[in-house]
Parts: sequence; structure tokens; C-alpha cells
Amino acid sequence: MTTTTPPVTLDDVRDAAARLKGVAHRTPVLRSRTLDALVGAEVFLKCENFQRVGAFKFRGAYNAASRLTPDQLARGIAAYSSGNHAQAVALAARELGTTAVIVMPEDAPRSKRDATAGYGAEIVTYDRYTGDRVAIAEALAAERGLALIPPYEHPHVIAGQGTAALELLEETGELDALLTPVGGGGLMAGSSTAAKGQYPDIRTIGVEPEAGDDTKRSLEAGRRIGIPVPKTIADGQALHTPGELTFSVNRRLLDEVVLVSDDEIRDAMRFAFERLKIVVEPSGATPLAALLSGRVSRLPRRVGVIVSGGNVDADRFARLCAGGE
Amino acid sequence: MTTTTPPVTLDDVRDAAARLKGVAHRTPVLRSRTLDALVGAEVFLKCENFQRVGAFKFRGAYNAASRLTPDQLARGIAAYSSGNHAQAVALAARELGTTAVIVMPEDAPRSKRDATAGYGAEIVTYDRYTGDRVAIAEALAAERGLALIPPYEHPHVIAGQGTAALELLEETGELDALLTPVGGGGLMAGSSTAAKGQYPDIRTIGVEPEAGDDTKRSLEAGRRIGIPVPKTIADGQALHTPGELTFSVNRRLLDEVVLVSDDEIRDAMRFAFERLKIVVEPSGATPLAALLSGRVSRLPRRVGVIVSGGNVDADRFARLCAGGE
Repeated sequence: MTTTTPPVTLDDVRDAAARLKGVAHRTPVLRSRTLDALVGAEVFLKCENFQRVGAFKFRGAYNAASRLTPDQLARGIAAYSSGNHAQAVALAARELGTTAVIVMPEDAPRSKRDATAGYGAEIVTYDRYTGDRVAIAEALAAERGLALIPPYEHPHVIAGQGTAALELLEETGELDALLTPVGGGGLMAGSSTAAKGQYPDIRTIGVEPEAGDDTKRSLEAGRRIGIPVPKTIADGQALHTPGELTFSVNRRLLDEVVLVSDDEIRDAMRFAFERLKIVVEPSGATPLAALLSGRVSRLPRRVGVIVSGGNVDADRFARLCAGGE
Repeated sequence: MTTTTPPVTLDDVRDAAARLKGVAHRTPVLRSRTLDALVGAEVFLKCENFQRVGAFKFRGAYNAASRLTPDQLARGIAAYSSGNHAQAVALAARELGTTAVIVMPEDAPRSKRDATAGYGAEIVTYDRYTGDRVAIAEALAAERGLALIPPYEHPHVIAGQGTAALELLEETGELDALLTPVGGGGLMAGSSTAAKGQYPDIRTIGVEPEAGDDTKRSLEAGRRIGIPVPKTIADGQALHTPGELTFSVNRRLLDEVVLVSDDEIRDAMRFAFERLKIVVEPSGATPLAALLSGRVSRLPRRVGVIVSGGNVDADRFARLCAGGE
């Protein structure tokens, strides 16, 4: 038997929290009597939809960027993303007084491009049917001497994402379970590290959309499984395989994965809107969907939920509520 | 010159706050860098959309109900409302261990009827084209010996509504201005009492929809003016004349009224959704609309806003965003 040092520890998460202090928002933890009564538990919602850039992604991006050397920072940062990580890296760069180049598909939604450019980032587009965004970003980073910040495959990114769960647990004390959306696995890995590092008995529950069950399958197989690119409204979780680094953490710390359907996600978004009065994007609503649809078996009493983001524009929200995409 | 005692004082608001402690939520005060940059001020949003029943109305209803004698409470409470006051009185009755009868138009939205009935209230309907809801409620109250809690024409209701501004100012300290929606005038009167009682120089700004400018006209005329029943998406402010009691407070403490169009309200609701990630009903969005549309002249630096409620269902929100009603 060999013992290896985990790539991310509770101390790494705590260190990230110190770096994020005064830079990231300490987001509120919401309670709802209606929700508690419906699911039969005490639910604590950590609202990362109120985080800067509207999602937890700023935590990991800033933590990683803040550790670059002055020389690296002077040259600038690069990232590839069509989603929240793009805005997160752009804002982290601005906060640290440097520049960012973001590789985005040329058909990315106008609102996401505008928001990213609004933080001062340069946007480089590619054709997502023919181009490989990782290769393009790596070539660009090499050519210009930029530091590439990946969306989840990096210990500093994972540690940063774990700070949301750390703050939640500071406020609630010990919880019986923690529900977290699983996409690339960075938020899940960071959350589990923060939670199990303090409370080894806490039950960590990942939530994936039915079509994007790559982490569930991988956990069952004991190795990373690839699936076809999933078709789901949960665009932050439309990945076809878990990250190598994130899976190495999650196979150790993630107790189970629960799946939810797109309609259950739609219902959860509507519930959040009408009863909680908050805006939650599809991926961010998956844990709430798991609770409301009764998909978690033997639900314990005190349950934490990471509401990971709120970036959905009003028109798409209306389409989703009407059963569309 | 005669000096009369004001019907509601700062001490009355403080006393209401003591009664509401542990019963009403102490709602969060949100900040937004984006909003501040757009309007050129420091804006503090007191989020009563997160209040119980989704609006500030619970504060006044509970304060008034909590002052009934044990005999009155044993007989029960009555109210007339098709909106948030209905749910507020129903919940206040339940919290105090008594029953409520709510007079509602027979074509009130299903969701509002269900929510009110969900708190255990009995609903009595009337035809709003032929019936007089006040007369119906008064007759019912007399017949059954119920205590009638009006939506705004009562010192205890006004004092209760003022507790939101009291909490806001506790958190922010002195502000230069306070923006509040004006409907019947209870929230406005309570807010001004709380604000000017502590900071006589604070500028109190009421916001009405263009079509429902009865308080603006009345202030200009120096007496209560009646207008045709206004057609506006701000259903909480579709009143044709100010209350007698509320106007007696507002003519003394309300510095100015600003008007906003329905389209400006729609834009503000969308802004709240997309940038603040919160759900705000049309009436609750009027102060935000006034700020975003530049309708407030010489806007000072530190500005408080009462976001009064968030009761709009997802389907209506979609219709409103599409320019409908």
C-alpha cells in the first residue's frame, strides 16, 4: 500500500480563502421555510449566484492568478472558455493589474462575449466545429508568454473553488450532507476537500444532468469514462469526461452522484425564482432539482447546497420555463 | 399655528421592530458594483423581496395584529386585498394562533388565492366590477366580530412598514437619500418616519408609476387628489388616491415624487434579474427604475432603496420582459 499526498488539502483551501478575502464576495447563505417543509430537511443554500461574475468560478481563477510571479503577471494570462470561467479570468486579471486573452467559440452568446470584454479582456475566437480550443489557447500562451489558467485541472483552481464550501461550513457548523453540481469536477473536488477535511463523516453528493453522467459512470468504473458530448440545458456540466486531476480527488472524497433530468432542472429554476426570489442558472440549479425531485435517498437532516451560479439571461430563462432550451 | 402629534413616530417604528424580532426576516442589504457604476452613487438595496410572504407587507400586518387583545385575537382577523397584504394578514394570523378571512376579487390570480389559502386563511370572493370590497369586508367583520386590518390606513400598519428602513439605516448609518415605492402610502410614510426621525436632512424620494401619480399630484396640490384607476404593470401601486392618514404623514415628510414609465420598470426588473440575480415585482422595481433611467435629479452619493417585493410568477415575468403585461 502506498500513501500519496493529495493534490489539494484543507490547508490549501484555507490559504485560498485568505487570498480571496476582500476580493471575492462572502456570499449569503439563504434559508427557506417552504423549501425545508417540501424536502423534509434543513437546507442551507450557499448563493454563489451572488458572487462576482455571477458564479463561483471567480474564486478559483483569482486564487490561481494571484500566485503567478510578478514576471508572469506582467506578461498576462490566457484561458479558454465559453462560459463563466472566461469572465472569471478576465476579472481576476483586471484585479491583479494585468491583461487576459480568452479563447472563445465564434458563436458564443453575445452577452458572454460582451461581459468578458467588459472586464478588459482580449477575445480570440475559433470555430468550435473544426478547432481545438485547448491547442489554440496553448499555442497562443506559448507564443505570447502568457500563463494559462485552466477551468478545473489545476490545484490552485480547485482550492479556490473549495472556499465557497469553507465559508458555508463556517456559518452552519457541521452538516450531514453537502450537495454540489459536478461539471469538470473542480467545484466538487474543492468542496469535498473543504468539507471532509473538517468533517470526515459528511456525506458528499455530486449532482449531474442525466445526459452528462460522466463522473457517475467513472466513479462506478473506478476510472475516467468518456461519453458523447451531452445534450442538456445544464451548459456548465456538458462535459464528456471528468478531469484527470479532479477525478483523482473525487474518486477519493465524493460519496455518490445523483442524476437529474432537464425538466427537473427547469422546475428547480422556477422554484428558485418564485419561492426563493433568486436567479439560478441551469447547472446551478441541479442540486436543488435533486432535492425537490426526491432523487437523494435517505436525505439526512442538515443539508448544505452550493448554488453555483446565476448567469442566465431573462430571455433564455423564459424559454427554459416554457420547456425550451 | 397649532402643533399636532404625528400619528406615527420613530418610537412607534422602534416598538414595531421589537415586536417583529424573530418573526419577520431581517432581510439582506445588497450592493452591486455594476449598479453603482451605472448610476454614479453608492446604492444600498434593502431586499424585502426576501421577506416572509415575499414583500414588506408582513411587517405592518403582523405589527397591527400583534396589538389586538386576546379577545379580539380569539375572534379572528379580516382583510381585503388581492395582493401581498392578503398573504401578509393570513400569515400574521397563523403566527398569532388565530384565523383570518380575506376578501378577494373572484378573478384574483390562482397563485395568490392558493398562497393565501396555504397560510390557512378563509377566502371570501366578490365581483370587483359590482362589489365594494371595503364595504364587504366591514360588513363581514361586523357580522363575525372580526378585527379588520387595513392595507395602509392604520398607525400600526405604517409603523410596521417603517421597520425595513429602520433596519437599512442601522446597517448603513446616515444616507443622503432614501427611495421608496409609493402605493397607498403606508411604506412611504413608515420609511420617512424612520428615516427623518433619525436623520432630518435625509432626502426622501417616493416613486410612482407615470399612470398612478396620485401622490405626486396631491403633494403639488397640497390636498388629496383623485385620478382614474391607473393602468400600469405596477399592480401594487394602481391606486386612485392617497390614503388620508398616510397622506397626512407624507405631506410632512416626503420631499419629492419621481415618476417612471412601465418600460422603465420592465428594464429595471430585467436588470435586477440579469445583474443582481434577484426577482423583483413591478412595484418593487420602481425605485431601481428611477435610478437607472436617471429620473432623480442631482442624485447624491449614498442612496438607500427599499426593494419592496418579489411576487411575480415566472410566466408573468416572461410576458413583462417581452413588453407585455
